[in-house]
Amino acid sequence: MCEANAYILHDDGTEELFLGAVDLIEPNENGGLKLVSIFGEQKIIDGSIERMSLVNHKVLLKTRNREQ
Amino acid sequence: MCEANAYILHDDGTEELFLGAVDLIEPNENGGLKLVSIFGEQKIIDGSIERMSLVNHKVLLKTRNREQ
Repeated sequence: MCEANAYILHDDGTEELFLGAVDLIEPNENGGLKLVSIFGEQKIIDGSIERMSLVNHKVLLKTRNREQ
Repeated sequence: MCEANAYILHDDGTEELFLGAVDLIEPNENGGLKLVSIFGEQKIIDGSIERMSLVNHKVLLKTRNREQ
């Protein structure tokens, strides 16, 4: 299977698992992203794709800065 | 291998292959995307991800409308 793990990339360079075994990724209506795992688990993030490597099964996400 | 094929999704619903065997996807500095295949072929698109299914090895891209 070719699902990937999606991590939030923090400003200090650390990566935090957001959702494992991600199959589907699509933008949602609020400018964020909807991710759905192969198990049907669905998570929304107010952020965007920072980069991804499909061969490495890895998606890095960046959250929008909510502090204005 | 878990690379995917990236297609441009046209307004009429047809899909046009943009780059095969994509490994890396990341935003570029112009608000578009850079895609790199497992063979090192690199393509830039002035557009965004419409949706993707990693299990189906498929990335759908939408080009920005250049006609204003």
